[in-house]
Amino acid sequence: MQTKALSPELVAMMDAYWRAANYLSVGQIYLYDNPLLKKELMLKHIKPRLLGHWGTVPGLNFIYVHLNRIIKAYDLNIINITGPGHGGPGLVANAYLEGTYSEVYPHISQDEEGLTRLFKQFSFPGGIPSHVSPETPGSINEGGELGYALSHAFGAAFDNPDLLVACVIGDGEAETGPMATSWHSNKFLNPVHDGAVLPILHLNGYKIAGPTVLARIPHDELEALFHGYGYTPHFVEGDEPMEMHVLMAATLDRVVGEIRRIQRDAREQGFTERPRWPMIILRTPKGWTCPREVDGKPTEGTWRSHQVPMGDMGHPGHVKLLETWMKSYRPQELFDKSGRLRPELAGLAPAGERRMSANPHANGGLFLRDLRLPDFGDYAVKVPKPGAVDAEATRVQGEFIRDVIARNPSTFRVFSPDETSSNRWGAVFEVTSRCSMAAIVPGDEHVAPDGRVMEMLSEHQCEGWLEGYLLTGRHGFFSCYEAFIHIVDSMFNQHAKWLDVTRGIPWRRPIASLNYLLSSHVWRQDHNGFSHQDPGFIDVAANKKSEVIRVYLPPDANTLLCVTDQCLRSRNCVNVVVAGKQPGPQWLDMDAAVKHCAAGIGIWPWASNDQGCEPDVVMACCGDVPTLETLAAVQLLREHFPALKIRVVNVVDLMKLQHHREHPHGLSDGDFDTLFTTDKPVIFAYHGYPWLIHRLTYRRTNHGNLHVRGFKEEGSTTTPFDMVVVNDLDRFRLMADVIDRVPQVGATAAYAKQAIRDKLIEHRQYIEEHGEDLPEIRNWRWGLGEKEKLAGGKRES
Amino acid sequence: MQTKALSPELVAMMDAYWRAANYLSVGQIYLYDNPLLKKELMLKHIKPRLLGHWGTVPGLNFIYVHLNRIIKAYDLNIINITGPGHGGPGLVANAYLEGTYSEVYPHISQDEEGLTRLFKQFSFPGGIPSHVSPETPGSINEGGELGYALSHAFGAAFDNPDLLVACVIGDGEAETGPMATSWHSNKFLNPVHDGAVLPILHLNGYKIAGPTVLARIPHDELEALFHGYGYTPHFVEGDEPMEMHVLMAATLDRVVGEIRRIQRDAREQGFTERPRWPMIILRTPKGWTCPREVDGKPTEGTWRSHQVPMGDMGHPGHVKLLETWMKSYRPQELFDKSGRLRPELAGLAPAGERRMSANPHANGGLFLRDLRLPDFGDYAVKVPKPGAVDAEATRVQGEFIRDVIARNPSTFRVFSPDETSSNRWGAVFEVTSRCSMAAIVPGDEHVAPDGRVMEMLSEHQCEGWLEGYLLTGRHGFFSCYEAFIHIVDSMFNQHAKWLDVTRGIPWRRPIASLNYLLSSHVWRQDHNGFSHQDPGFIDVAANKKSEVIRVYLPPDANTLLCVTDQCLRSRNCVNVVVAGKQPGPQWLDMDAAVKHCAAGIGIWPWASNDQGCEPDVVMACCGDVPTLETLAAVQLLREHFPALKIRVVNVVDLMKLQHHREHPHGLSDGDFDTLFTTDKPVIFAYHGYPWLIHRLTYRRTNHGNLHVRGFKEEGSTTTPFDMVVVNDLDRFRLMADVIDRVPQVGATAAYAKQAIRDKLIEHRQYIEEHGEDLPEIRNWRWGLGEKEKLAGGKRES
Repeated sequence: MQTKALSPELVAMMDAYWRAANYLSVGQIYLYDNPLLKKELMLKHIKPRLLGHWGTVPGLNFIYVHLNRIIKAYDLNIINITGPGHGGPGLVANAYLEGTYSEVYPHISQDEEGLTRLFKQFSFPGGIPSHVSPETPGSINEGGELGYALSHAFGAAFDNPDLLVACVIGDGEAETGPMATSWHSNKFLNPVHDGAVLPILHLNGYKIAGPTVLARIPHDELEALFHGYGYTPHFVEGDEPMEMHVLMAATLDRVVGEIRRIQRDAREQGFTERPRWPMIILRTPKGWTCPREVDGKPTEGTWRSHQVPMGDMGHPGHVKLLETWMKSYRPQELFDKSGRLRPELAGLAPAGERRMSANPHANGGLFLRDLRLPDFGDYAVKVPKPGAVDAEATRVQGEFIRDVIARNPSTFRVFSPDETSSNRWGAVFEVTSRCSMAAIVPGDEHVAPDGRVMEMLSEHQCEGWLEGYLLTGRHGFFSCYEAFIHIVDSMFNQHAKWLDVTRGIPWRRPIASLNYLLSSHVWRQDHNGFSHQDPGFIDVAANKKSEVIRVYLPPDANTLLCVTDQCLRSRNCVNVVVAGKQPGPQWLDMDAAVKHCAAGIGIWPWASNDQGCEPDVVMACCGDVPTLETLAAVQLLREHFPALKIRVVNVVDLMKLQHHREHPHGLSDGDFDTLFTTDKPVIFAYHGYPWLIHRLTYRRTNHGNLHVRGFKEEGSTTTPFDMVVVNDLDRFRLMADVIDRVPQVGATAAYAKQAIRDKLIEHRQYIEEHGEDLPEIRNWRWGLGEKEKLAGGKRES
Repeated sequence: MQTKALSPELVAMMDAYWRAANYLSVGQIYLYDNPLLKKELMLKHIKPRLLGHWGTVPGLNFIYVHLNRIIKAYDLNIINITGPGHGGPGLVANAYLEGTYSEVYPHISQDEEGLTRLFKQFSFPGGIPSHVSPETPGSINEGGELGYALSHAFGAAFDNPDLLVACVIGDGEAETGPMATSWHSNKFLNPVHDGAVLPILHLNGYKIAGPTVLARIPHDELEALFHGYGYTPHFVEGDEPMEMHVLMAATLDRVVGEIRRIQRDAREQGFTERPRWPMIILRTPKGWTCPREVDGKPTEGTWRSHQVPMGDMGHPGHVKLLETWMKSYRPQELFDKSGRLRPELAGLAPAGERRMSANPHANGGLFLRDLRLPDFGDYAVKVPKPGAVDAEATRVQGEFIRDVIARNPSTFRVFSPDETSSNRWGAVFEVTSRCSMAAIVPGDEHVAPDGRVMEMLSEHQCEGWLEGYLLTGRHGFFSCYEAFIHIVDSMFNQHAKWLDVTRGIPWRRPIASLNYLLSSHVWRQDHNGFSHQDPGFIDVAANKKSEVIRVYLPPDANTLLCVTDQCLRSRNCVNVVVAGKQPGPQWLDMDAAVKHCAAGIGIWPWASNDQGCEPDVVMACCGDVPTLETLAAVQLLREHFPALKIRVVNVVDLMKLQHHREHPHGLSDGDFDTLFTTDKPVIFAYHGYPWLIHRLTYRRTNHGNLHVRGFKEEGSTTTPFDMVVVNDLDRFRLMADVIDRVPQVGATAAYAKQAIRDKLIEHRQYIEEHGEDLPEIRNWRWGLGEKEKLAGGKRES
């Protein structure tokens, strides 16, 4: 392809546009008034509290004006992901220059009054953050916590064949682990049906105070590193603006050519081998164009320009220095008297949806379409009566997911750190494969360049890809081991905060929820041991704004199907689904499951014997294993103490336990009391850390009688049943809890407790000899009505 | 240096040793009895439940025997860090072969009975996990969660000039983010006073089910990648054992030569430039030496050998296949009749502490010496009376840390993602620098190759380095922004679990605690905004075993000094210290601070007026900002309602709130009731999420009257005081809470509440106009006894 030659006039115009963006960025950081410097700059025109980050901004503005040129020159569809978090002023300045900002925030008009407001609002109470935040049009990447820009970029590019995602990565962010592995995303980008990602590594040498690693290694190492990551690096290095404009423009022309060639080859001939995508390494001075020195200390090009180069404006000469700096951009050449960007400059920016700040891909809800969902009832496990059959819940869910993939061939993907099979979603491989553009060799199974299962052994990568995919208007599911989802606690936090903030931004359209399947959970990691046992992600999730958090613990396959369907329809939330993958008893047929999940919590009448009266005890359960142990305890109790009135309450939707003032799904106090009584003992068997249940219910009437069992860090390598025994969540412990708290059990209590002790000794001896659980535990079945021994072995029918 | 030629006899012996380790590894995975196959193998000799991971083990055993050779050949001091988590059987087998295992676990003797026990215990109830876990002699890296092996290795090598840390990295783990950035650790390893790290990237092609990235990129990319990371990669590739032995041995000879040359040059001539350290890329088949096929499906060399190659031993022919497999190692050549490794083979292993399984560096507590600590009282802020002076708590702490560094020049380091200065520990740069072996250029400040401040913009890297440093018997402190410590939630979890497990392993000696300073905390991230505001790490920490968790929230500089001293003396714990860096009032002189911190919680009599009687209300506070707001509220209340009896309780040690049965620091119910009364309203201002206080206290007598204020995700870009206002933690809200709950306030309540409303409106208007807090808020001082207006402005003296 032909390089578009840059005329000197165009270079001058682009430089002017860059100066305009820089001027507006400095203005945002410093000015309270006098935005066009029509008057001599005085202290009173300057904000009393100076906040913000200049260091990265001129480089971001430089990139922006050059991307604008190629958008227009080649009619490209580009979104721009800005890794350097504190580059907010630059991206806001550009959105303002191209008009988008005033469109979505009409009070920030394109005149002097609007400029004054634009400057004042930055890092000001009631204004906008210093990061590229949800409030910034054109952004899908919050710059507050670093590391995820490139994963987001690739997520945005998947299944967007016409999109080019430019992604600026600062040399600070480049030191993070998630970023360091995300370069390998190019092994997962298909040039036929995905878009392109153009990484721009921006080296300016410093983090907050210290030097950066990538800016301080020799050129040959830097080149080798990105060659090794599978890219062709193009270097753009310098500090003389006019030379840099020419160099950057020529490089971008070359890069666009390479991308087009790669895409054309792949789309005409089909995928043959992984292409070597281009990337750019841009090296410019930190704080480029700010004062060389402040108070005699080097500033431009050093860490001193990271934040506000002149923090103390009371210092003699600083006001003048700022005025000189701002005037060095020659604002009178850039803006007319009314404060509006001169039309010949404004014409450099693309128009309409081609503006990066107005590209609808960066407001993905605009593109969002409902998934074509099969009827989840078609996958139902037939449950003639509660407990009569066994199933592996996530395996059944996998069949549903398989058909979601098949029906939505370009808007739904599955993400997992190599756990799709392990979490029992193997059915998906009937219709698709693991995605890989790297070498595929004999012996590989279900690996293909067009696979829709995104597996890399990096929870960060999976999360980042999925977030990018969702933020650009598509759907997905993250399947993970429960314990290791903590690896992305902080990414989850940031995404939940993003969703919370966007709820207050009318122009941001709702996006599909972020769905987690957490399987291979704490109770069935008996074989992998303590390091694999941690149910605490629910606690992390529960700390975020209740409006965006949902937590589901379906007890069997049919309830899991209902919940999955609900998650795939929901918007602007994070759905945490904890479910088992091991064979386990099925409790509800599909009709009952639908009703139970619609309520989110409910009495299981078939397991209860308190019909028509107040129970003596409430046995509550949440999670598949706690439900199993509760029902086994109930069966024992009803056999030993037939007069005891027991109510069984099962919780699918954990947030039902909160008050409806605290969570939109929460029960009213009246409804809570109806289920849990106001004065009877409640024995609550919970999947996770027991104190979470107390935290959710401490204001409820009957909280004083609530006794919770759950995981208490007593993990080890043992048997499934022993896992519940060592954590005091087993059927015998639950039974003992009832005996200890319900006087009605009467005279046989002592006998029952002795039987419990004997049984636990027998359990311990058996597993130490055989390495597996007692047959009567392994073969236990729910089935009242038959004569059965303590924890008896035989099935009802 | 000269290559030690390998005689064919030595190759044969090393191969035999390798076969012995492989035999013992297979035995651990499968056998319940008949460990020497003296009888024909039958189903009854096989465990009923087969667990474990074979795939990575033969490669690990191969590396081990070769490391043993160079230890002996060159008298090297090596510890071996095993990244591939499920390689447990291999490392246990080697520890057993060299005798260490029987020394620390005498019942696992070196005879047939011991072998039977060795095999049975593996992944068996009451036995050992399938990972390289704390129970494994010679290990400092739990293999359960992947990503941290290389960071641990470098942490171990720092300040251990004579140590060589071999680190095996699986190609699965190599995909994780933390691992991808940890390769850059070579920019932080000083060849003069640190040891060496030898990374061995072990490519076997598969994770659980899918292919790995690094095994599927071309040779030139792989070589470029590690060249780019700054290493000289040496390739050892193949599947024919005898050829591979020769190749591996020659490569290790070369590598040892390179390392010695690097160290000699640096130690003789001083550090000049970053050396290019060697590393090894070892490519062997997954499951090497297991059956080629099982049930007609390729197994050796494929993902099918990842776990147990023949999972179903009831399948016809599987028992025979296993027997053939195990006999392929020719056990009769390896073990004598009693089951003991033949002496000529045993002689291949190093002796005593040179054995990698017995190297004391891998049981760091053996080397641990108390820090030489200055008297923290010497750094005290003079506090003539409560609230009379301001100080920046972490800046004062930084002076103490400075002198800890100076007095412990080779056993203490500071780790931070570029936040040492930002968190106000700048004083440390009076005695040391940021560590860097990369290029240092004019303009850099406090950067040097022998710096003891380890800064890389990766919380993972900081945490991993520090863990490795502590686990090998040294001391350190991690300084982080509070919100971003969530990035290492899962690493913290694993370290806390490691500490918990080691408490039950008598031969593991206690190590120094892992200390976190979390500053730049939620209440003073008003400028950075919502993404930087998250106090939830305390909640994550509180879920782990209370025996290893300590959480401190000192309200001022002197209490922070006390707590810091305490943390630096503690062992086998994780200490979470949350402290402010901004100027704030100082409450306690050093004597009072020492007493207060020794108790961990207490009444502040100078702020209370309930002397000699029961208070009407308890105002409790925990954290610097909540303490400030509480005291401001108390001042307002005492002015408006002089008859109101207020007790102020301050909490430094958060776990005091738990019952002493739940946490070793916990208060008894009696002591708790003495502080908090049994029936009076308690208004509790807490630093973090308020529900944590409920979770810690829900069983306390007076819990029903406890009203907690804290962070509730109402974060934004605003002023410091507005942050507490939007979260309902401000002095006016606390005052209103008292008015609402204490009938004694009487008739003036309505007037006071109107004044509060007026003041909050004034606040809102002022910050929206000025961008900073009301002067009377900014200048507020504690000082009773003067006539002051509502939230009055003037200082006491």
